Amino acid sequence: MAKTNAGRFFEDYKIGDVIEHAVPRTVSGGERAMYHALYPMRHALYSSDQFARDCGLPESPLDDLAAFHVVFGKTVPDVSLNAIANLGYAEGRWLQPVYEGDTLRSVSEVIGLKQNSNGKSGVVYVRTQGLNQLDDVVLEYVRWVMVRKNDLDAPAPETVVPELKTVIPASDLVIPEGLNFGAYDFTLAGEPHRWGDYEVGEVIDHVDGVTIEEAEHMLATRLWQNTAKVHFDATFRPDGQRLIYGGHIISMARALSFNGLANAQMIVGLNGGAHANPCFSGLTVKAWSEVLDKAETSAPGVGAIRLRLVATCGGEAFKLKGEDGKYLPEVLLDLDYWALMPL
Amino acid sequence: MAKTNAGRFFEDYKIGDVIEHAVPRTVSGGERAMYHALYPMRHALYSSDQFARDCGLPESPLDDLAAFHVVFGKTVPDVSLNAIANLGYAEGRWLQPVYEGDTLRSVSEVIGLKQNSNGKSGVVYVRTQGLNQLDDVVLEYVRWVMVRKNDLDAPAPETVVPELKTVIPASDLVIPEGLNFGAYDFTLAGEPHRWGDYEVGEVIDHVDGVTIEEAEHMLATRLWQNTAKVHFDATFRPDGQRLIYGGHIISMARALSFNGLANAQMIVGLNGGAHANPCFSGLTVKAWSEVLDKAETSAPGVGAIRLRLVATCGGEAFKLKGEDGKYLPEVLLDLDYWALMPL
Amino acid sequence: MAKTNAGRFFEDYKIGDVIEHAVPRTVSGGERAMYHALYPMRHALYSSDQFARDCGLPESPLDDLAAFHVVFGKTVPDVSLNAIANLGYAEGRWLQPVYEGDTLRSVSEVIGLKQNSNGKSGVVYVRTQGLNQLDDVVLEYVRWVMVRKNDLDAPAPETVVPELKTVIPASDLVIPEGLNFGAYDFTLAGEPHRWGDYEVGEVIDHVDGVTIEEAEHMLATRLWQNTAKVHFDATFRPDGQRLIYGGHIISMARALSFNGLANAQMIVGLNGGAHANPCFSGLTVKAWSEVLDKAETSAPGVGAIRLRLVATCGGEAFKLKGEDGKYLPEVLLDLDYWALMPL
Repeated sequence: MAKTNAGRFFEDYKIGDVIEHAVPRTVSGGERAMYHALYPMRHALYSSDQFARDCGLPESPLDDLAAFHVVFGKTVPDVSLNAIANLGYAEGRWLQPVYEGDTLRSVSEVIGLKQNSNGKSGVVYVRTQGLNQLDDVVLEYVRWVMVRKNDLDAPAPETVVPELKTVIPASDLVIPEGLNFGAYDFTLAGEPHRWGDYEVGEVIDHVDGVTIEEAEHMLATRLWQNTAKVHFDATFRPDGQRLIYGGHIISMARALSFNGLANAQMIVGLNGGAHANPCFSGLTVKAWSEVLDKAETSAPGVGAIRLRLVATCGGEAFKLKGEDGKYLPEVLLDLDYWALMPL
Repeated sequence: MAKTNAGRFFEDYKIGDVIEHAVPRTVSGGERAMYHALYPMRHALYSSDQFARDCGLPESPLDDLAAFHVVFGKTVPDVSLNAIANLGYAEGRWLQPVYEGDTLRSVSEVIGLKQNSNGKSGVVYVRTQGLNQLDDVVLEYVRWVMVRKNDLDAPAPETVVPELKTVIPASDLVIPEGLNFGAYDFTLAGEPHRWGDYEVGEVIDHVDGVTIEEAEHMLATRLWQNTAKVHFDATFRPDGQRLIYGGHIISMARALSFNGLANAQMIVGLNGGAHANPCFSGLTVKAWSEVLDKAETSAPGVGAIRLRLVATCGGEAFKLKGEDGKYLPEVLLDLDYWALMPL
Repeated sequence: MAKTNAGRFFEDYKIGDVIEHAVPRTVSGGERAMYHALYPMRHALYSSDQFARDCGLPESPLDDLAAFHVVFGKTVPDVSLNAIANLGYAEGRWLQPVYEGDTLRSVSEVIGLKQNSNGKSGVVYVRTQGLNQLDDVVLEYVRWVMVRKNDLDAPAPETVVPELKTVIPASDLVIPEGLNFGAYDFTLAGEPHRWGDYEVGEVIDHVDGVTIEEAEHMLATRLWQNTAKVHFDATFRPDGQRLIYGGHIISMARALSFNGLANAQMIVGLNGGAHANPCFSGLTVKAWSEVLDKAETSAPGVGAIRLRLVATCGGEAFKLKGEDGKYLPEVLLDLDYWALMPL
């Protein structure tokens, strides 16, 4: 068994470590077709080469979250194989669209470590970058996970908790080169609502729901080459259930949010996110959004909108936390992101 | 909730309305691979570039029904979100093959309206066209659906019921430019039976069956960007079942019909069709066909054959309706189409 | 029913018969994306064009087993539609990588026949070749199946049992033109273990497991245009279960073997294989391997390793047969193959 990867434990991480994650991936139209079969994606910029060209891009890119999943999946064997929980995300930015034929790989740097007071686990902070075949960084994000210790006698490392922005300033968002919503076709995009039509504080119930299937979440998770046993092996957990990859819920909620946010075309920033409760097969996922902020950008006709995206599996829309300040049991996801929208 | 699409109600349609449906779609080899994984498709013209070239086409096109589903899916948010039933199809013609890289969009014209005597709903007739990036019409069809009224006080529109051909005359069928079955390879195609071997009135039991899975019909329906809740959300219907998109049954039956009709290569006409009974996960779909008519065409070596394609979920082959003239409960689909076959 | 394919029976085969199987197939990035969604494939050479180029290939090929399944699937309607059992494989060799855009077809020659003593069935041996659009043979293998007789009065054919190599000599393995592991990147490949690190007799428990879903094995089996009813139709077997295509287990086990054998990149020889027990939905598949042999090759930096790959659905790793010499009931697959690995 010495040749199999047991994954890293808390004591195996050092501040400043740079981990080059394995298995680069060339993406094709196959990944897009699979992604659009797995989630009810309808954003026109990611569906039509013609629409993308009319917005100044060379062709329709791979969906932003699909690119995120490809980059994220590579980090799992090195970062979260022995994770107890995925605690958070911050400072996520999409820096360049990913196109068919691009080859992605991932590199992470350990930027924070904090052993838990129980001495059995600790929190690891990594900043991950996804790079293409030209070594351009296409996206980056910070995430922190709670990881088991293997050797309980290993000394606690010096505590380093990175200072992370709770929100990416709009001025730090990177607009894809050439993007221009000046001739944006709202009819083809599916909704008439432009950036100016949304108000900070506004909430939107996205109405539609999708019941989760084992085959579907496994197809998705494998497509991103995410190897965490807990998603695939029904004998792994005592309850015989396969835990669903949190990214499956992120993509499902984002796709559902088309109905009311069809013009929130491109995701450019991930301010934060919590997988509030685990999700299992058979649950029906719905979503609602809240407009958290708005900002102008330097690109023609392009506005930025900051959105909270909440996925639920029951209960009422617009309810997030109970009186105790904790997420309600039916809340699966609370995501805070920046998207680009026509003015 | 004002920003989500509630769909149109009966009173929202006017004769002559032209609806440009949203979300154009560029298709790639990914759509074909998904389609061939979802249905047991084996028609050689749609499986092999080489076979297609030997028949005079530039390469293997996207399956005709996949192109139909892409075009149809776009109409759902505008035409059938509040539909009670999909009542029929007529005058469907495939006008040009769809190739990898083509971008499809859909446009519908309202050509008929008839309020029901109960005042609560009405029938809407639309003629839908699918167009590619060059604005060429690649296919067109008429369908009519029963749609709910929202405002029961809205006045009934003047009744207009379009005159529709019950059968497309063979002379109106469009043969793809260059199609030539003169050097058709029956061995590679899988069966020796040519156009001359089929007789009007002949029936064929296609023998094979496929048991329907939730994950598969949802993958298919999403791939066509068909958003009707009833296919995805197990909490939507009181019985907790997800209704299967009728197009899933059409494609399944067509794929099953390979066994006995391997050389009915291209679909060029849809004379009519009825989704006789709803289908749910767990049922096993089988199919049988009846030769309804035959016609010659102007293309070298190419004959046209008119077929009834019946999908069932039990019962005996070749039984369609009961003594009461109604479809038997095990009949799912009764489709009437024209295909092209080597002479 | 005369027009449907009832399949061949034992008495329909003659020594020397050459069967050109139907339905050629052009493969694209769609097939790869589907394959990687269906199995947890991570071998870098098949995931990244860049990695493949750094190993001397023009781009990332279609996974070797996916190519095998495409070729195999075409033979099913002619060879195994009336098979009672798939008995074995031998002398399998991959002769040339398959790339996007290649069109594959299959041809089989009957090389052995042996009627069973019960007079009701017999064993048919075929040598199958997969050819591309240039008529280059891309892979070949022998398999033998037990096939029903239809006419029990048909005379027994002269018994011909071909002499088959139990193991392909390393010198007969074909190394893809240009393959060079001289600059192999072990970090990107995912594991540091090179050819020299493996010892004959060494066993590896691959640790990970995947629970089998109906939708997934059917998607896979259809993608290879394998039409055997028993995989798709829950009403076909008295127990209401769909038997899983043996190739699904082969691909699943191979993918699982990444964990411990990440650098066993290319499969070039199939010495033998037994589907020891049937597999059904709901079982959880795990895998272990044993190093059977090692050999040098003429290509720079490239070694050959002969591996036993065993798939199980329970029980302990490294247990294969009981005291009676029969496979243990939890053993699904015992495969013997040659792979190429960096020195």
